[in-house]
Amino acid sequence: MIRTDSNLDLVLERVVDVPCELVWEAWTKPEHIKEWFTPAPWKTVDCEIDLRPGGAFKTVMQSPEGQRFPNEGCFLEIVPNSKLVWTSSLLANYRPANLTAKPGHECEELAMTAIILLEPHGKKTKYTAIALHGDSETRKRHADMGFKDGWGKALDQLVEHMKTLR
Amino acid sequence: MIRTDSNLDLVLERVVDVPCELVWEAWTKPEHIKEWFTPAPWKTVDCEIDLRPGGAFKTVMQSPEGQRFPNEGCFLEIVPNSKLVWTSSLLANYRPANLTAKPGHECEELAMTAIILLEPHGKKTKYTAIALHGDSETRKRHADMGFKDGWGKALDQLVEHMKTLR
Repeated sequence: MIRTDSNLDLVLERVVDVPCELVWEAWTKPEHIKEWFTPAPWKTVDCEIDLRPGGAFKTVMQSPEGQRFPNEGCFLEIVPNSKLVWTSSLLANYRPANLTAKPGHECEELAMTAIILLEPHGKKTKYTAIALHGDSETRKRHADMGFKDGWGKALDQLVEHMKTLR
Repeated sequence: MIRTDSNLDLVLERVVDVPCELVWEAWTKPEHIKEWFTPAPWKTVDCEIDLRPGGAFKTVMQSPEGQRFPNEGCFLEIVPNSKLVWTSSLLANYRPANLTAKPGHECEELAMTAIILLEPHGKKTKYTAIALHGDSETRKRHADMGFKDGWGKALDQLVEHMKTLR
């Protein structure tokens, strides 16, 4: 059980129509991440994954106008098909990140730890995505940036993409 | 091997006259931390250790005037008698920390990941403490706060304290 704090955290919970193994693949292979991670019309044009505690999780998002926004995070916990934890507060090998505070920017970087939990639900997956923040202001900024819609739409894209592989 | 960056990191390397097992004990048990962690005349008056990846590392330092400064960090990697990694960029269970920027304050909190490496050196220990920072300004602030003297003096206290237990 992960304890969350409704003043600090955001949670998206859904049952999705692909098994845990495919959701795990989608989250841990760059070729899949590029297909679903960013809600259209934005794109993820590059991705690097070093799947170990302390390993880098790098993505480059591209706006519809073609501007690129690189992001780097650090993986913390990896339990195949079950639990993935990464944070934007650290870079590769646990180096503290320098998050540029750009409130209101369309691709603002914010300090967040993401916990993705997968549980079998018949042949489907109970999918829980938790975003932990350090203060209620950051939680609010993330909510205002469209956490629920954005992560929900990305999840739709994940399911659609992984179904094409079956 | 840990790759460090001389523009971003600070390193203290020494051979100390206690075996790895005792240095490990000193770093991982609150009753020992209180005896050595803070260079005198400052004291560590409270300590909590939840020794697992994601577990809290809490200390309360006290100034000679009696003012208390609580700190919370998060353990990341634990390899008994060999490697301990924790960061001030995260709190318990990987929640991003809100480090208050108080440059010049006598007990400034700064974003840092600490890596403690222990290697047997006969009956002694080759002790390496690495502080990773996110930018060269933070590295400089940490150096100016007395990293080398402070961590060195604390290490002297560690050795002295652990020798009393033999």
